[in-house]
Amino acid sequence: MTTLFKDVFILDGERKRAQRGHLLVSKGRIQSVLELSETPPAADKIVDGRGHTAVLPGFVNAHTHAAMVLLRGLGEEAPLMEWLQKNIWPVEAKMTAEHIYRGTVSAILEMLETGTTCFADMYFEMDGVAQAALEAGIRCALCRGLVDGPLQPDGTRKIDRAVAENLSLFEKWHGREGLLTVQLGPHAPYTVPLPDMKRIAALAAERGIGIHFHFLEVEWELGYIRDELKLRPEDYLRETGILGVPGAVLAHAVWMDPEWADETDLPRVTIVHNPCSNMKLGNGVMPLDAWLDKNVGLALGTDGASSNNRLDMWGEMRSAALLHKGTGRNPTSTPAIDILRMATFEGARAFGFANKGLIRDGWMADLILVDLDQPHYIGADEDNLAGYIVYAGSSADIRGTMVNGKWLYRDGVFPGLNKEEIMRKAREARNAIVS
Amino acid sequence: MTTLFKDVFILDGERKRAQRGHLLVSKGRIQSVLELSETPPAADKIVDGRGHTAVLPGFVNAHTHAAMVLLRGLGEEAPLMEWLQKNIWPVEAKMTAEHIYRGTVSAILEMLETGTTCFADMYFEMDGVAQAALEAGIRCALCRGLVDGPLQPDGTRKIDRAVAENLSLFEKWHGREGLLTVQLGPHAPYTVPLPDMKRIAALAAERGIGIHFHFLEVEWELGYIRDELKLRPEDYLRETGILGVPGAVLAHAVWMDPEWADETDLPRVTIVHNPCSNMKLGNGVMPLDAWLDKNVGLALGTDGASSNNRLDMWGEMRSAALLHKGTGRNPTSTPAIDILRMATFEGARAFGFANKGLIRDGWMADLILVDLDQPHYIGADEDNLAGYIVYAGSSADIRGTMVNGKWLYRDGVFPGLNKEEIMRKAREARNAIVS
Repeated sequence: MTTLFKDVFILDGERKRAQRGHLLVSKGRIQSVLELSETPPAADKIVDGRGHTAVLPGFVNAHTHAAMVLLRGLGEEAPLMEWLQKNIWPVEAKMTAEHIYRGTVSAILEMLETGTTCFADMYFEMDGVAQAALEAGIRCALCRGLVDGPLQPDGTRKIDRAVAENLSLFEKWHGREGLLTVQLGPHAPYTVPLPDMKRIAALAAERGIGIHFHFLEVEWELGYIRDELKLRPEDYLRETGILGVPGAVLAHAVWMDPEWADETDLPRVTIVHNPCSNMKLGNGVMPLDAWLDKNVGLALGTDGASSNNRLDMWGEMRSAALLHKGTGRNPTSTPAIDILRMATFEGARAFGFANKGLIRDGWMADLILVDLDQPHYIGADEDNLAGYIVYAGSSADIRGTMVNGKWLYRDGVFPGLNKEEIMRKAREARNAIVS
Repeated sequence: MTTLFKDVFILDGERKRAQRGHLLVSKGRIQSVLELSETPPAADKIVDGRGHTAVLPGFVNAHTHAAMVLLRGLGEEAPLMEWLQKNIWPVEAKMTAEHIYRGTVSAILEMLETGTTCFADMYFEMDGVAQAALEAGIRCALCRGLVDGPLQPDGTRKIDRAVAENLSLFEKWHGREGLLTVQLGPHAPYTVPLPDMKRIAALAAERGIGIHFHFLEVEWELGYIRDELKLRPEDYLRETGILGVPGAVLAHAVWMDPEWADETDLPRVTIVHNPCSNMKLGNGVMPLDAWLDKNVGLALGTDGASSNNRLDMWGEMRSAALLHKGTGRNPTSTPAIDILRMATFEGARAFGFANKGLIRDGWMADLILVDLDQPHYIGADEDNLAGYIVYAGSSADIRGTMVNGKWLYRDGVFPGLNKEEIMRKAREARNAIVS
């Protein structure tokens, strides 16, 4: 199966200038990018862009909890701990594997429609997440959220069981169909005892597994690490051994100071910025502009839909690109092209998807098709397209989302999925857990 | 012509709880709102919401420069003064009445598609803006941006000519077809000499005309007022007589201190919050949360598309609702329902549109139709709909925009407008002014 994108604008997060030309997809890969003047090759399917269409890499949502779509809108506008204790945790306690599968499938509809081709998910009952992703054909980086708690009735520790479960997930799903990767998911410094965090990091380093966890989302974590763990917060990553892991992904990192990068090498670390969730929960604004100058990976994520409340990476890009100009009082900061790279390539790299997130020969054909034939794109050209996409566009402009060279969303339709049925089952699950 | 919205959720900025029922529109007005249990009346047209559709008041974009869609993307990410001096002003100098008409018509497409039923516009060559609004059937509050400058060749003052032009606009267009209102538009404290500002305010008070101007968008205006005008910034509105005007609309007001409201009565003043433009230009974040406790009008606007870069009031709502929670570190601040009221009713009131912006018997049938039959609305109900709309929804959910009981946008189509032709002419205008 080959698909030819004829006369389109080709843009990704490493091209300051878009290229107008043709793009050939074959066997799930980008076969070649041709100049507009070249004769487009034959193909099974032709998408004629007529010079009014853009092709971009699909988005990588680098931190989410997809099944939390079922908890959307609960405890809106409540203080953080009240929201968690009264509205989120009691409902999560009622969630079964079936609910999580149903919620994830429904979340995948939202993500595909808004251009996401890969999502990094941390939750529980993750077999259902893996299953949902494989069935839909979307890429997913998954981990079991590892937390400690009271001893189990059989005398075992909760976190030991969770780690074992996470390792089973790795054995079962990592690399499956080229769509899945699996990480270890120690939830956060305050939910995983320090010795366990060290053990998990050692395990990850030894086995070559990535780590995905929440780090300094909330300001009080700084005090917790200092007072309870007796560590300088800037030493936590080194002391736990997380820096020795092949790929460590730190979600949020609102309260991590970019100056720490001057005394600690962070090239194997990726920070996932979640601007909307951080705003909505009142956690603050991370210093993205300063981080962009450091040698660290920077990706973008939505977090769960109960604290965003969208799973729309395009909207997340726009929020990221505007927010730091405003809070930093600097219109030249956080350029659109950097934000686009964060939303695509950097998330893919962080979660072990090689050759994904840029438009290059041989790279994964995980692409979105954007309709530029609309009033808000008048004036867009090769030189300014990234700015138009990030500042003027929205996910409503997406006409197709392709993973592995296959359309998973096209003109309002999900070819391989039964939208009505998925929504009906998700509604049932919502009703079952929220009474 | 009567239209019945059958089995819909009815929400506006003064209902904490949405109502599920029927809504009858007749002769451009909301005739009645009925309980779901009541028998819906007969009507010429029936929109069956099937319990999966919401009807909201259309948005009022309370501060924009519509024709600036033609300048979109110019000088992206440049420092403010460089952006204005190198990219905006030289291009604006080339804009003719025809360009402004063409740009405004194209902007109206964007606004209708994203649910705006009224826009408050400040620019020049405003006859074209009035004409464009009347032809489209959208409401518009318009003013001539009044600035001073070098003496004209005939010895007259630029600002005197502009004021005369603005008054002619008032005579010609104010109240026309119930669609238009006209204000005086003194641009800003730093472009209008103090005596002229006083004269304009006196004229407005005497003639019962509203005023629409930029106030404290940029921090240095505080110093300008103090050093050049020899006034405490908090005295400017009183000293100029602006407080005596029947309705004064202050765009931006990023650097206005809510505490000023404690020493000065501001009930006839409306502040227009433009969160995205203020962020993008690096002007800062206005203290909306504190303003919500004061006795002052608060509306929402996009500003021009060259500094936003969208004319999407729904997106602006979401930005406003998230931003202040993040910068103020308080998830309970700036509730969705307040933001919805700002985006609808308060803008209408500020610009002299009585009975617009809420869903009440006899009020204007300026409405939007929202499709809730989508994954991201699963769980929405009467109690939480405002939160779902503001946090989870987007303008992509709009299936219709109605002004005066007439559909101006419906399911991707603009019944009274030739979209292709409008876009073609706008592209020509863009090309003519940007070489």
